[in-house]
Amino acid sequence: MILLIRNSAEKQEKEKLIKLLEDKHFTIHQSEGLHTTVLGLVGDTSSLDIDALKSLDIVEDVKRIQEPYKAANRKFHPKNTVVHVGSLAIGDGHFQVIAGPCSVESEDQIQNIAQSVQASGATLLRGGAFKPRTSPYAFQGLKAEGLELLKKAKDTTGMPIVTEIMSPAHLELFSDVDIIQVGARNMQNFDLLKELGRQPKPILLKRGLANTLEELLTSAEYIMAGGNQNVILCERGIRTFETATRNTLDISAIPMLKKLSHLPVVVDPSHATGNAALVEPMSMAAVAAGADGLIIEVHNNPAAALCDGAQSLRPESFDVLMKKILGLRTYLASGI
Amino acid sequence: MILLIRNSAEKQEKEKLIKLLEDKHFTIHQSEGLHTTVLGLVGDTSSLDIDALKSLDIVEDVKRIQEPYKAANRKFHPKNTVVHVGSLAIGDGHFQVIAGPCSVESEDQIQNIAQSVQASGATLLRGGAFKPRTSPYAFQGLKAEGLELLKKAKDTTGMPIVTEIMSPAHLELFSDVDIIQVGARNMQNFDLLKELGRQPKPILLKRGLANTLEELLTSAEYIMAGGNQNVILCERGIRTFETATRNTLDISAIPMLKKLSHLPVVVDPSHATGNAALVEPMSMAAVAAGADGLIIEVHNNPAAALCDGAQSLRPESFDVLMKKILGLRTYLASGI
Amino acid sequence: MILLIRNSAEKQEKEKLIKLLEDKHFTIHQSEGLHTTVLGLVGDTSSLDIDALKSLDIVEDVKRIQEPYKAANRKFHPKNTVVHVGSLAIGDGHFQVIAGPCSVESEDQIQNIAQSVQASGATLLRGGAFKPRTSPYAFQGLKAEGLELLKKAKDTTGMPIVTEIMSPAHLELFSDVDIIQVGARNMQNFDLLKELGRQPKPILLKRGLANTLEELLTSAEYIMAGGNQNVILCERGIRTFETATRNTLDISAIPMLKKLSHLPVVVDPSHATGNAALVEPMSMAAVAAGADGLIIEVHNNPAAALCDGAQSLRPESFDVLMKKILGLRTYLASGI
Amino acid sequence: MILLIRNSAEKQEKEKLIKLLEDKHFTIHQSEGLHTTVLGLVGDTSSLDIDALKSLDIVEDVKRIQEPYKAANRKFHPKNTVVHVGSLAIGDGHFQVIAGPCSVESEDQIQNIAQSVQASGATLLRGGAFKPRTSPYAFQGLKAEGLELLKKAKDTTGMPIVTEIMSPAHLELFSDVDIIQVGARNMQNFDLLKELGRQPKPILLKRGLANTLEELLTSAEYIMAGGNQNVILCERGIRTFETATRNTLDISAIPMLKKLSHLPVVVDPSHATGNAALVEPMSMAAVAAGADGLIIEVHNNPAAALCDGAQSLRPESFDVLMKKILGLRTYLASGI
Repeated sequence: MILLIRNSAEKQEKEKLIKLLEDKHFTIHQSEGLHTTVLGLVGDTSSLDIDALKSLDIVEDVKRIQEPYKAANRKFHPKNTVVHVGSLAIGDGHFQVIAGPCSVESEDQIQNIAQSVQASGATLLRGGAFKPRTSPYAFQGLKAEGLELLKKAKDTTGMPIVTEIMSPAHLELFSDVDIIQVGARNMQNFDLLKELGRQPKPILLKRGLANTLEELLTSAEYIMAGGNQNVILCERGIRTFETATRNTLDISAIPMLKKLSHLPVVVDPSHATGNAALVEPMSMAAVAAGADGLIIEVHNNPAAALCDGAQSLRPESFDVLMKKILGLRTYLASGI
Repeated sequence: MILLIRNSAEKQEKEKLIKLLEDKHFTIHQSEGLHTTVLGLVGDTSSLDIDALKSLDIVEDVKRIQEPYKAANRKFHPKNTVVHVGSLAIGDGHFQVIAGPCSVESEDQIQNIAQSVQASGATLLRGGAFKPRTSPYAFQGLKAEGLELLKKAKDTTGMPIVTEIMSPAHLELFSDVDIIQVGARNMQNFDLLKELGRQPKPILLKRGLANTLEELLTSAEYIMAGGNQNVILCERGIRTFETATRNTLDISAIPMLKKLSHLPVVVDPSHATGNAALVEPMSMAAVAAGADGLIIEVHNNPAAALCDGAQSLRPESFDVLMKKILGLRTYLASGI
Repeated sequence: MILLIRNSAEKQEKEKLIKLLEDKHFTIHQSEGLHTTVLGLVGDTSSLDIDALKSLDIVEDVKRIQEPYKAANRKFHPKNTVVHVGSLAIGDGHFQVIAGPCSVESEDQIQNIAQSVQASGATLLRGGAFKPRTSPYAFQGLKAEGLELLKKAKDTTGMPIVTEIMSPAHLELFSDVDIIQVGARNMQNFDLLKELGRQPKPILLKRGLANTLEELLTSAEYIMAGGNQNVILCERGIRTFETATRNTLDISAIPMLKKLSHLPVVVDPSHATGNAALVEPMSMAAVAAGADGLIIEVHNNPAAALCDGAQSLRPESFDVLMKKILGLRTYLASGI
Repeated sequence: MILLIRNSAEKQEKEKLIKLLEDKHFTIHQSEGLHTTVLGLVGDTSSLDIDALKSLDIVEDVKRIQEPYKAANRKFHPKNTVVHVGSLAIGDGHFQVIAGPCSVESEDQIQNIAQSVQASGATLLRGGAFKPRTSPYAFQGLKAEGLELLKKAKDTTGMPIVTEIMSPAHLELFSDVDIIQVGARNMQNFDLLKELGRQPKPILLKRGLANTLEELLTSAEYIMAGGNQNVILCERGIRTFETATRNTLDISAIPMLKKLSHLPVVVDPSHATGNAALVEPMSMAAVAAGADGLIIEVHNNPAAALCDGAQSLRPESFDVLMKKILGLRTYLASGI
């Protein structure tokens, strides 16, 4: 951490601050510039309060050097993490496609889609039971019943299931869920993250709509600091000024997250674009940029979908897409 | 709601859609344009799924006309809401200043600040017990103990207390809290909002960092739909590209929220700017633009504050500020 | 275009407005809703002033249906445009890589890079002569001398040259330039766009840092309305809250621009990411998403580059990248 | 400037870099941290290329300490600048209101408005002759004829005139203009800024829609580096995700710009909000926050305005507003 001290600061004030920091076991290096003195702090600054330091009259600015996350940081964990879900692996070359409807609507629906996406090559089943909806008047999901239906589809197909949690209070209902998903709007619901840090199963953590990669990794850190190292990061589009697409899928987040962290990165092209026609090109782009997996919405009757219909592929389109995705994966792996 | 239908659509498809909508008790008006046909839907569209409609091949676009919130909408509730907290009122000309430290740190600290801000003219006491911190390694607040200390300060001074909740699981600890605050990062924590809709006390709902006013009002609607009409809206700065200030305080949100809604609007200039020197000009601006209240951080020793120190005023500065705020209120009320 | 009229409006006022619009040769369809009346305008609304309409007391809102661009609109020009530069073609399946240094620095430098990127498979040469720099104290480019050096490299290699213009006053210096580039900061420099509409050569139009695709296409329309149909659109990253990358490359802009328009789309992964290590994954992603070309910075000594060094590849890395790009293009074209 | 050097860097590479910097006359301070070495550069870094430094393999990051602007920097010019226009002064306690129509439309129109706003207390006249319009099909202003009409209104009323320039090619037409305005979309049209640096008259520089205050001040620096110190900064709203207002007026820019710079700051509440009803509260807020002036659109027949009608006040409303503004100024100056 670097502190910029105003040269107008009284010597006594500066020495008081240096003493205070040394008492906290930091080593301090000084460097006097034309208009500011630079103090370099050596030591673990992750619990140090930047804002409290900034509030000191003699401090002009504080610049962090160390990333605020450790367990998620590739610097300290150079090897890629592989997250295991049953016999499946995600990360470090292991690629999986998670597919299914936005919302679980009925037993028929989820069973049909599950079998269909499995036949096309998807290896995990997704489906919303608790739905975060902007409006209180919109369909909020089948909740516990939806989880039951997902479990039945898992029993039939053998596919592990991925579904979103919205409150720590629902955790006991999630005992049969294989990967618990944290939605974009809950990326900084810190109490929920803390609870998930105590769970023995993988967490799929979606990036918030206006959050940086550092914030995403610091939220992953909340889960990992609690003891759960099985975090899968998910890029799902960020809010920008663009209105032609629902959000802007940040494909560069894939290589950048892999540079900053060792955790696997999957991409959700459905929510990001809000447009079924864009799911294919964005899936291909994500694979080409090195994603460890995709999470794609598939619906057997998009027009009647109870939510997010605009972004859902029909099973036939998904089947075509899977061939392209797996073909591209094979081509890229061939190292030609 | 307006649906744009491609002119390339088959007549049969169009009629099928119209029938489907009429079955849902909407009246449909058609208007044929050069490249699109416009369908106007008359009826209550708040539970209609825009995305499902957009996903239909024949639909080019869907444009909402009605706001997605009703209870919070001034159109249906033209009179200003007044929220009562004990003998205090907020809204419709009633103005209150909520002041106190970012975090409750000790009994001495909170008692001293409470008495000090009360002497300066603040009427409600704020203080964080459960703190939403980006990093899991940062101070997370004194939690239940912090609530106890706040309660003691309330007993001593008679000031109602305002503090943030982070999880529905903590609700029983909040029985002595007078106004429950929902932080910016939880503005769309819908499960929390639903719980607060069942509480018998006012909720101070902060705008999310990248949320629109419509989204803020739709989150207020979650609380109001549950039966709790005592919602106070709070503008606390939004994320922009500016880095000189922590966030950008959207002063225009004050008159715009008052146009769209009947709920009271208070402003938090401390978190928005992250800079004690900007609290005074932004407080004055908020008052001049018609705010119903301010929520201001005051700390007896900003340098040592455990969090958010950069934005805290010292009690002496707060005292000067209160004189200016109340003077300006008096001047504006005089109608000169 | 759709006008929402308040139901509180006096009948007389509404009829006055309808007459005014009919006098402008629009056909009007009315549809009465619960709280608003919808007026649908049929006719060419591109010169109609939305803001003037919004300012009328009886008008609640105005929603545009037709896109504000015509010449650039795929609706009216369903076939892909192919832009020709000498014997090269861009668009409709024709793919080109434009490569070269950020700034032209010396004859040796530009000749060496030109020959190197040509050997690796690039077909057009880029290089900055007039440089838009945020600070007046930064290197502003070799200007006319830089254009001369580019021309010499074109003479030697036969590669068409692409370089940025910053003022209409420099146009006569650009007579030997094959594609004139408009930088992101000038995307809405309308006087410059008008001049370029009168030029007989292709224009590479970069998307502004905070501009939507509709705005990009409306800026293309400025050029096309002047008579120059040879516009190449360029996605080069938009400003977001992310700081790990310089900007956020919007890969979804590629398929979306191709849906909205018939113009070719090239992608600049160098400026967008500001990070040489990300150029390869983002180039691959752009190709996988259907880009018609790439514009990539290559520098023979990145450390000494006078500007934008962080995003420049060394010639050896560019050579490896070109093999991957062309391999991927071949794979995708094979239709496996 | 601070350079973070990877500890994995070879000693030889590090020493080579230090020598290179010392050759450029910087003094270097080293500070070894756990994972990085910090190099502090002392000297004038304004012409140093951050990106070239970042591109070095051994460099992890570069952090600037000094602001990139000097002439505009309060650090080096602690006293407030006063800009003089004829007998009027702006800045350091001198407050002016600039008023007039969005576009000059006819002699009658501009004469009537000029006399009306003057009677209400405005001291400068604004009016657009060259109009930056997103669409090439929208009204582009009366151009030279508009400037003539403005001049006539100046002759009649004695009010100095303020109008926007869009191209250096038009400069000779601006000889009678008193303050030349640079629009938001041209804030980084560097060739235009350079030309204005050679003009002998004040420049009103509007902040770009997605630009930071540092970028605004660095654009001011372009003008000042050319010799023209008479720059008036203008906050006119920034692009955010909010759609209820056209842009978000950043009131905190007023005190922050005054902290960073000595230049006067005026505020444009009309364009920012795009809503006549918000002009009054935002004008009051701007005054309360310390603005040195306001620039307000007034139109005698908003419904018929050829552009931007939604944000224009009628003369009667402007008259009421002026009374409130001047009353508030008087109240605040009284120091009660």
